[in-house]
Amino acid sequence: MKPNFSLRLRVFNLNCWGIPYLSKHRADRMKRLGNFLNMESFDLVLLEEVWSEQDFQYLRQKLLPTYPAAHYFRSGIIGSGLCVFSKHPIQEFTQHVYTLNGYPYMVHHGDWFSGKAVGLLVFHLSGLVLNAYVTHLHAEYNRQKDIYLAHRVAQAWELAHFIHHTSKKADVILLCGDLNLHPKDLGFRLLKEWTGLHDAYLETQDFKGSEEGCTMVPENCYVNQQELEPFPCGIRIDYVLYKAVSGFCISCKTLKTTTGHDPHSGTPLSDHEALMATLCVRHSPPQHNPSPTHGPAERSPLISVLREACTELDLGVAQARWWASFATYMIGLGLLILAVLSALVAEGGIREVAILLWTLSVGLVLGVGAVYLFHLQEAKGLCRARAELQHVLGRAREAQNLGPEFEPALFLLHQEGDKTED
Amino acid sequence: MKPNFSLRLRVFNLNCWGIPYLSKHRADRMKRLGNFLNMESFDLVLLEEVWSEQDFQYLRQKLLPTYPAAHYFRSGIIGSGLCVFSKHPIQEFTQHVYTLNGYPYMVHHGDWFSGKAVGLLVFHLSGLVLNAYVTHLHAEYNRQKDIYLAHRVAQAWELAHFIHHTSKKADVILLCGDLNLHPKDLGFRLLKEWTGLHDAYLETQDFKGSEEGCTMVPENCYVNQQELEPFPCGIRIDYVLYKAVSGFCISCKTLKTTTGHDPHSGTPLSDHEALMATLCVRHSPPQHNPSPTHGPAERSPLISVLREACTELDLGVAQARWWASFATYMIGLGLLILAVLSALVAEGGIREVAILLWTLSVGLVLGVGAVYLFHLQEAKGLCRARAELQHVLGRAREAQNLGPEFEPALFLLHQEGDKTED
Repeated sequence: MKPNFSLRLRVFNLNCWGIPYLSKHRADRMKRLGNFLNMESFDLVLLEEVWSEQDFQYLRQKLLPTYPAAHYFRSGIIGSGLCVFSKHPIQEFTQHVYTLNGYPYMVHHGDWFSGKAVGLLVFHLSGLVLNAYVTHLHAEYNRQKDIYLAHRVAQAWELAHFIHHTSKKADVILLCGDLNLHPKDLGFRLLKEWTGLHDAYLETQDFKGSEEGCTMVPENCYVNQQELEPFPCGIRIDYVLYKAVSGFCISCKTLKTTTGHDPHSGTPLSDHEALMATLCVRHSPPQHNPSPTHGPAERSPLISVLREACTELDLGVAQARWWASFATYMIGLGLLILAVLSALVAEGGIREVAILLWTLSVGLVLGVGAVYLFHLQEAKGLCRARAELQHVLGRAREAQNLGPEFEPALFLLHQEGDKTED
Repeated sequence: MKPNFSLRLRVFNLNCWGIPYLSKHRADRMKRLGNFLNMESFDLVLLEEVWSEQDFQYLRQKLLPTYPAAHYFRSGIIGSGLCVFSKHPIQEFTQHVYTLNGYPYMVHHGDWFSGKAVGLLVFHLSGLVLNAYVTHLHAEYNRQKDIYLAHRVAQAWELAHFIHHTSKKADVILLCGDLNLHPKDLGFRLLKEWTGLHDAYLETQDFKGSEEGCTMVPENCYVNQQELEPFPCGIRIDYVLYKAVSGFCISCKTLKTTTGHDPHSGTPLSDHEALMATLCVRHSPPQHNPSPTHGPAERSPLISVLREACTELDLGVAQARWWASFATYMIGLGLLILAVLSALVAEGGIREVAILLWTLSVGLVLGVGAVYLFHLQEAKGLCRARAELQHVLGRAREAQNLGPEFEPALFLLHQEGDKTED
């Protein structure tokens, strides 16, 4: 790599709100989005909530001359809603579907049916390896009583862990998407602390856009104003995050967001605001220890956030087990009713009602049986995330206890795989 | 790394056949397995089909003095059945649960409920990074008419892709497990061609054990003799596979299998045979191009196996879509019956029978609705694997068309992430 190496990367991210039959003016918005993307000619366009594969195919055709490479991440029953358009060839791609993603019986929320995931795209740009990740986490429907909190924390952990394990040879890591997490939320802190990613909004040299970088703002006519009532300037839940490894440095030159309108002041492109970042990657002389020289006091945020996440997952496991036990009792009740009704029918009681109730009880036993199995699986998924977290926590504590002279231990924890030269 | 660096690694792999209530002499076999492992003191013990977490906890306690590190991979409703015991500290672990794993309505086969997965363990051994993978793929119940073939091919692909994306900084890669694939099966060839892993049985300098290295043999009293009838010496479906990256070389000094008995000639430890390998990792001078200098002719096995896998996945997608369509018709039929019966009940016909049929139709509509959603998801999962395969196939073809002078293109395809130095 030449010492004066420099790479400019223009990135676009948008949650497109593309729910067939439900999202307003979908076709028109997709058309205008296509026009805008063609005009702006970004390096990389990362989209979420493109739920209809027809919409992706439409955009693909429209964007082909400007963005020859594209990929749609398929998963779950509906899909992940994630897709990407790129000016540069995609070398490789893969995806990870989150283990936990809401409840199938919460049909009106729909997240479970979508198969939320993180997509990975590998690019080779002028000899530099860029790993770009795009994701969409479980929505937050009630901030005061959030029944999906443990799932979202587990998703944030899986996302961080997936990035950690798949980016060990990447020079630059980029993560864009709708995280459904506010900047101070546990999941976001966990993600940032474990991956070391930087937040473009906080680090940019030049910001233009909505107040406090919000990506859902009351000015947007598609936004449910009632939901935003507690947040007068809106909420920031969509992000551009990045980091570079030793030998490179990355900075955010400019970050723009739309402000509740089309970039050309028409009706908005979505109910979310778009993020447009110009990133600059430069060569920087390799340092002995590229991780900042943390002292134990500075390392504690990782330990503290890991501990907090473990507690949240503990609560989630207890809740899942409670539901599984509840379902067991309900199955027992259903079987009891079945037995009583069978006896009634045999004795020639009120047959019509008995038969109806009998079939309803069979339905109850089968339905609740499925709920039981689901929560058993939920508990297993949460235990899995907790075990991974606890392992990392244990190793972070070890590194802290060993003191600053054992800094490399923590560095290895973060950058596992760096070969120790004898 | 010192030039005379050398590392000896003793590895044990066994599918434990640990199904609670169903597997014969489970407790006794676990006890004898524990004694044997303690006595032999391997570096790494990788086990499959430890379905009960209690069995894992029992082994953990028993093996603690010899194997201080252990991990149980939780997934699905029952679990993945995978666990590991190690003499060396586990630096990191994670897992990937296969997208497709049979059908929930094939309850008697049970694979869907188990959440089959691949587990990854990262070790740092004398400055060397070892990525050890353990896995168990979907069982084969009928080789002549295998309804799970597309799922197993997709699993083999996901396994290969997971290894590919998570091992980019590993010096040595080890994969052990019950692949439920014969050596010439499409899934196994796909895995070997895409990862470049070597088969310990084919490469070992010294082999002792069952004929042709079989891991399910007719001599084993727990094996269903009828299933093995077409294979007089048994089948080889459990493997130890490995590779080292540039700068290291790895060889298999010895490979042993049990031969249908306990290693001390008692009743066997499982219905599968155990694999015991002694691997030797040595320093080797870095080569300019560590991938063997393939000509286009030699590269064709990858292209050919990718093409074959694409065809198999195509068939799987068509089959999944057929089932989804069939389910749609059945839902229509159920709704029609419902309407007719509702009319009958309203007119005061044979009420008892009508009510019973009415509720049965509701059950039919709901049940078949679930089948429809399942096959929709199955088709999406198969399309996802096919898209990844097609992308790799496209790039492999490009590399082939560019001719031998463009060898680095294929090397980059295999070893993506290796930085091109300017």
